[in-house]
Amino acid sequence: MNHENQRKMKLREIGEFGFIERFSPEFKSLQTQDITGIGDDCAVLPMNESEDLLVTTDMLVEDIHFLRDGITPRQLGYKSVAVNLSDIAAMGGEPLGTFLSIAIPPEIDVEYLDELMKGYHEISVKYKVPLLGGDTTRSVKHLAINVSVLGKCPKGMARLRSMAETGDVICTTGYLGDSGGGLKVLLEKVALTANCDNLLKRHHLPEPRLPEGRFLQDFPGVHAMMDVSDGIASDLKHILKASGKTARVHLDQLPVSHSLRKVCEEQRWNVEELATGGGEDYELLFTVEGQQLEKLQEEFLRKFNQPVYPVGTIEEGEPAIQWFRNGQAVTFAKGGFNHFL
Amino acid sequence: MNHENQRKMKLREIGEFGFIERFSPEFKSLQTQDITGIGDDCAVLPMNESEDLLVTTDMLVEDIHFLRDGITPRQLGYKSVAVNLSDIAAMGGEPLGTFLSIAIPPEIDVEYLDELMKGYHEISVKYKVPLLGGDTTRSVKHLAINVSVLGKCPKGMARLRSMAETGDVICTTGYLGDSGGGLKVLLEKVALTANCDNLLKRHHLPEPRLPEGRFLQDFPGVHAMMDVSDGIASDLKHILKASGKTARVHLDQLPVSHSLRKVCEEQRWNVEELATGGGEDYELLFTVEGQQLEKLQEEFLRKFNQPVYPVGTIEEGEPAIQWFRNGQAVTFAKGGFNHFL
Repeated sequence: MNHENQRKMKLREIGEFGFIERFSPEFKSLQTQDITGIGDDCAVLPMNESEDLLVTTDMLVEDIHFLRDGITPRQLGYKSVAVNLSDIAAMGGEPLGTFLSIAIPPEIDVEYLDELMKGYHEISVKYKVPLLGGDTTRSVKHLAINVSVLGKCPKGMARLRSMAETGDVICTTGYLGDSGGGLKVLLEKVALTANCDNLLKRHHLPEPRLPEGRFLQDFPGVHAMMDVSDGIASDLKHILKASGKTARVHLDQLPVSHSLRKVCEEQRWNVEELATGGGEDYELLFTVEGQQLEKLQEEFLRKFNQPVYPVGTIEEGEPAIQWFRNGQAVTFAKGGFNHFL
Repeated sequence: MNHENQRKMKLREIGEFGFIERFSPEFKSLQTQDITGIGDDCAVLPMNESEDLLVTTDMLVEDIHFLRDGITPRQLGYKSVAVNLSDIAAMGGEPLGTFLSIAIPPEIDVEYLDELMKGYHEISVKYKVPLLGGDTTRSVKHLAINVSVLGKCPKGMARLRSMAETGDVICTTGYLGDSGGGLKVLLEKVALTANCDNLLKRHHLPEPRLPEGRFLQDFPGVHAMMDVSDGIASDLKHILKASGKTARVHLDQLPVSHSLRKVCEEQRWNVEELATGGGEDYELLFTVEGQQLEKLQEEFLRKFNQPVYPVGTIEEGEPAIQWFRNGQAVTFAKGGFNHFL
């Protein structure tokens, strides 16, 4: 590629991960061996004799991640903390404190900000995590919210994406596609039903799986873990790439809520596409030794009154997902999954 | 104030600190006693038996904190880390790692981002601090950069704003007003001279006073410390408010560089106004016991080949600054300092 072409190259051509790969190797040498840096849900640093420190940060930008008239300020405050706590949950950690940077355009009034901080406070109380600092600034046009969260977990016990092992069963902690369905309800201005409301609630008020994450981190045989933020079709690939494994996933085993199934039927939406690629579900995606699965399912159900859902297996091979429907291999193309031609 | 008025109240009317005061008390109860949260340069958390953890975060927004054609991307990358490392320096800490969230508008090309990351890398190498994570996202129009930094310092030894004591001498580690002068050179499109270049360099490439901060944290008799980000007229008030003290500051003792003095003469700018209110100098502002001052000055000069500058004293009284010029009390009004009428 010549210099002229390179000058014109835009971020969308190389993508977020392409951009990160351009600079991250150069920073690697500044890092000590005992640190897990770029590439997992959280960074992991040594903290003391018995605990590691976890750090995560996420930015929500108006008109990219949310529309100001599509989400109430209270929901936005709640969600901006929830998506970060979900990263702590994904390591099996416990949150210690949050930090809020907010860039505020001139027309936003104090009542809006008060509501936003009410939502922020609500989830902070729910998960007992203090707001410890941040930065408040003006912005010209768009609201931008960056939340950083510190957490901790028992030393050496953070569940990394790189920990998947051959023979592991891939599981999720809850329904997939609801949040993506909620977003579609918003964008396509679907007439609201109770089912639509359920999807919108999952989109606006995601629940970080913190107790579930801690339970799983501590459960013998649970290996890799992450949260489902982009949809499992994309997220599972991070586990496969980091672990150097392949996966078989069964579309018919993906947990789909009654509400999503109903709305998909009514609107003729492709339910498999939402369940695999919808994003923002913030359920946990993890792998567990096959022989531990049954015990895990029993204990999880007893503790959380919710099942875990096995959706596939980890195998030796190239980092890619092989999809199956009722035992038949299918392939994903624009518009959905199809049988091989 | 009735509800209708409250609905229309804007952030500019209550200010950044007014906004923070609206919500911070409610969060206080979530915080344990051993944590220093909102209100200092960094949050301070217990980390292990011998060290405390420091956390700071700062957001730079295009057209608010910088103009895209007013600073090179390399300088911007450098500065976005420098302003955060300065907060670690202000506690007397040592940086452990940085986290970068960046929202990128569509027209920014990869070359710009590569340059930005070169500047980010340059300062990361200089202060041996790894980049450990972050978030890359799109933005509609404006570039926004949030950097969070973790650091550490010996347990219980972080220099807080609340630690000033009556009889302390107020000092800074370097020239005041250079960065504000640089900004004025930019905004007023002053024809560039070598002196202007010096001011621009201080504006674009501020140097965090990390070794100086660690030295001061460890020096007996050094009490309160912070960095000069808004100008000492504003910053010193935070120390006074947090410590419940008053201050006397001598305008004729404020350290002003030859370059700033020259450019102010040429452009007929008020040098006192820039030195007290210019902002973004990122020098350290600290208080030290009177009887330790001489020893500190000697050791600092020997170690850093730079003097520390005493500019005033801490006294009993209301949190306010009393200004003096050549021993005469003066008062600040729009346009500069004046003798009392």
